[in-house]
Order: sequence, then structure tokens, then C-alpha cells
Amino acid sequence: MEVIFLGTGGTVPTPERNTVAVAVRVDNEVVLFDCCEGCQKQIMRSTVSFMKIKKVFITHFHGDHFLGLPGMLQTMGLLGRTAPLEIYGPEGAEGFIENLLETGYYGLDFDVRARDLKPGNTVQEAKFTVEAISLNHLVPTNGYLLREKTRPGRFYPEKAEELGVPKRFYGKLQRGECMKVGEREITPDMVMGPPRRGISVAYCTDTTPDWDTGAAKDCSLLIHDATGCDALKEKLNTFGHSTARQAAEIAKKCNAGKLALIHYSQRYREVSGLLEEARVIFQNTFAPRDLDTVMLKHED
Amino acid sequence: MEVIFLGTGGTVPTPERNTVAVAVRVDNEVVLFDCCEGCQKQIMRSTVSFMKIKKVFITHFHGDHFLGLPGMLQTMGLLGRTAPLEIYGPEGAEGFIENLLETGYYGLDFDVRARDLKPGNTVQEAKFTVEAISLNHLVPTNGYLLREKTRPGRFYPEKAEELGVPKRFYGKLQRGECMKVGEREITPDMVMGPPRRGISVAYCTDTTPDWDTGAAKDCSLLIHDATGCDALKEKLNTFGHSTARQAAEIAKKCNAGKLALIHYSQRYREVSGLLEEARVIFQNTFAPRDLDTVMLKHED
Repeated sequence: MEVIFLGTGGTVPTPERNTVAVAVRVDNEVVLFDCCEGCQKQIMRSTVSFMKIKKVFITHFHGDHFLGLPGMLQTMGLLGRTAPLEIYGPEGAEGFIENLLETGYYGLDFDVRARDLKPGNTVQEAKFTVEAISLNHLVPTNGYLLREKTRPGRFYPEKAEELGVPKRFYGKLQRGECMKVGEREITPDMVMGPPRRGISVAYCTDTTPDWDTGAAKDCSLLIHDATGCDALKEKLNTFGHSTARQAAEIAKKCNAGKLALIHYSQRYREVSGLLEEARVIFQNTFAPRDLDTVMLKHED
Repeated sequence: MEVIFLGTGGTVPTPERNTVAVAVRVDNEVVLFDCCEGCQKQIMRSTVSFMKIKKVFITHFHGDHFLGLPGMLQTMGLLGRTAPLEIYGPEGAEGFIENLLETGYYGLDFDVRARDLKPGNTVQEAKFTVEAISLNHLVPTNGYLLREKTRPGRFYPEKAEELGVPKRFYGKLQRGECMKVGEREITPDMVMGPPRRGISVAYCTDTTPDWDTGAAKDCSLLIHDATGCDALKEKLNTFGHSTARQAAEIAKKCNAGKLALIHYSQRYREVSGLLEEARVIFQNTFAPRDLDTVMLKHED
């Protein structure tokens, strides 16, 4: 799975950073989380194809999280897209997207399907799911957990051999089917380990740190609101945001594999101070720049 | 007067060009013509202050001409703006702007005043006017002519001296007041030349070349749709655009001082070919890049 940080800034773009948008490439599809103004230009600069984006998940309807949608839709239309695009968001999303499509003249040859997701609602795909998570911000806001579906357990050829299974039947067992060796039924669990969890990415911005982190437990990567430094904690929390240190505390609590800080305030032209504050709590933290890419690999 | 090309591309941004937005600095105010996606970032990169922008004139409601508005409004709000912003556009503008302000959560402490302008309608400022011009595009579209108000004629001190006017009264005559030298009334026209036309900029995109160019006659600078090369003329005209050569023909017809080509199709990463085609017809043509600035000076 590949995570492409198209925009990493918060609230207001700077010459160095767009506001937020993160693309996740999974199973030959791209899922987009948020879509900042200028997102289409960032897509052009990246390895992401407009045509592979099938689903967009908007966290909330503050401008820095969705204002790139109309331009991206128009460019998709000009590129001849016919496949529908699904846009998900928190309460109110359907109405906002409808409004957006009535602002100006569009000539799209594809359907835009908007849907509100309540926390806990899950969008199912063949090989992954995206679950809406309740965040704590000034307006209705969803975080999202993208999770690959559980993969079959590891196959142990030495066990199969011991049971006398001919090699040509290994695939059948790996696909979860049973078979017989003489009179004895061989079931997959006799030659395979327990099912393995898929890679998961939790995208959680904008939010104070006091959201229910249950759904993000053990996620491979947590991408979290880190608007500023700890000295500004009270102010940032009042405005519905977290500090970098608070993001790290959440990562620790979730037992995340890695933490990506995101949504830095425009006051930070340079974010190494935020990174340091977070790493004191959670070592495996990084501070992506626009267009940075992270590969997440299966470890078992 | 200073003209700052914030965006110069057409329809779809490219890594090199934003779509269209042009700022004109006049009389300590900035007038913005069109407001492409990413316009706020271009403003940050330029010498333009968000707070000096008092009026925005949108040519039409295709995305490449207005999608930067919501982000710019929000950033103005975050910067603490309280002065109202006036947004003008063709038929439908009021409704579109109202819709736009209902898409997402805004928290602006300033008024956004939208108004439809019919061709011929003129917005008056102390030292300049902006007149809407009828263009010929696929949807209702205005061009705009920004014109400094007429300046008083040149003052000839030698004439004043000949008439025996004491030097301390020169200012009075220059301000348009009369005075007496003995019994003789001295009127301004006795010591001054005819009123001088102000500098004017005509902003005309998107359009086919067959628009009524009367209002742009003798403009100092014509900024015109030059979507592509002459070989594509029929196709471009069908889609409501002009070629660079047609833009040059309009500049010649208007007796413009200079011509700026704008709104190049994204197929032209390099526009010297378009520039050549235009210069055959109208020598004083240039092809601005994003953030290029042109000074227009009084010549008399």
C-alpha cells in the first residue's frame, strides 16, 4: 500500500505547502482523503492517475479540506471520465456536494455520488474497507480507517508434506478449500497459520486529541492533526485541533506502527520542532512534506 | 498602473501555469479579474496584498475562472478582514456566489456583495471605472474594461506667464478653477491642453473573436483569449475561444497599445509558437508567464 501526501498544511496554504489531501493506492485503486484547493495540480505532479480515483472521503466542510473538489471533477470530466466518482463525508456532505455542483457550469459525463457517513458506517470494497470514525472538531467531522481485508494465514509446506498432501493440491488449501488424503479430510487450518490482519491507515484530522481511538487500534499508520507545538495546546484544542505531542500520545495509545504529522499551522515554515516534540513520546513519527510518499508493506 | 498576471493558463492548470487571474493595481487598490483555483497562493507569491483587493470581476462561471474565490475569501477572513468585498460577474453571478457561500462552513467577518453586471454597466470608483463588455462564449460571459478617469490636460507655464498669471495661481488653474488678472478672466483652457485619456486595460477571455470591440478602442493593454494556434481555429471557435492570431487581429482592430496573450490550452507547455503567430499581425504582443508584471505608464 502506498500513501501519497498531496498536501500537508493546515487552514491556509503557504508557498511550500498545500492544505490537506492524502491519496492511498490500494488494490489498483486510489482512495483520496480530503481534497484541498490545488489538489488537482498536486495529482498532476505525483504518480496518481485521476482515473484511478474512485472514492473521495472528506473529513469535514472547512475550505482547506474540500475546495479542490470542483476543479478536480472538471478536470476528470475534460479527461473523458465516464466512471462514477463516490464522495463520502460527514453529516451534510450530500447537501454540500449538491450545492457545489450547482455553483458554476459543469459538463460532466460521469456520475458524482455523494453520501453522508455516520461514525461506524463502513464502505466495503473487494479487498479493503473504509470506516468512518467520530472526531472532535468545531463542525461535524469524520476520521477514516482504511483497512485491507484480513489475509489468509501463512502456509506451511512442511506440515502439508507431513500429512501427505500432493503438491498440486497446495493451492486448493491456500484458497481455503478442504481435500482428502486417502480417507482423511485435510482442512486449511491444518497447514496454515491464523488469518493475518491487513495493513491499515487511520486518517484523523481535524480534531482535538479526545476522540475515541478504538477503531484505530493497532493501525499500521496514523495520520493525525498536529496543528502546532505544545505551548499552544489550550488555544489549539479550543479551535478543535491537536498539538504534535498530543498526536504522538494518540499514536502510542493506538499502538500505531508509524505516525505522520499533518495539518501544520501556516506559522511553521519549518516543522522540525514539532517533530521533536512528538518523537519524545512516539519515536516512529515523521513529518511529511507535500508529495512525500510512504510504502506500507506486509510484515508477515 | 501595474498588471500582475497571477495565472495565465486555460481550462486546466499545468505544473507551470495556474488557470486565469489577473490583478490590476490602480489608485492604491487592487482589482482582480477572474480568480482561478490556487489564486490565493499566487497572491502570496506576488506583491499583491489580500487587504487591497476590493473588487473582483468574474468573466464567467466555468471553473477555471472562479474556483479560487472560496479559498481566497476564507484566507481574507482568517487575516481579519472587515472591509466588504465586491464581486461582479455576468448574469447569474449573484446566485452562484450565494450558493458558493452556502457550500461548507464560512466564518467571515466581512460582507461579500455580489452583483450581476450587464454589458454596458459600469462600476464607478473615484479614479477609475470598470465597464462590462459583451463577449461571445458558451455561457454568459463579460469582458471588462478598466479605465482611469480622464486626467486634466497638460499645463503650459509659458502661456500662463504670457498672460501675466502669478506663479502662486498656477495650481488653481491646474485644478480647473478660473481667476482674474486685472479685469481679464483667465480660464484653465487658456493655459492647458485638452483633457488626457487615462490608461485602460481590456480583459477579454473567454471568447471567440467576434465580439463588439467598440468599448476596447484605443485601450492601453488588451488581455485576450489565445487558447491555441491558428491550425485549430475552427475547433477553438466552436468551443467559444480564439486563436493567438485572432487575438492579434482584435488588438489591431482596437488599436491597442499592447496585447497580452492569455488562457493557453494545457497542450502548450511552451508558447513561443503562439506568440510568433500573433506578432505577424500585431508586433507589440507578449505572452506572460504566471507572476509576470507589466507597468503601464502615462505617455503624455
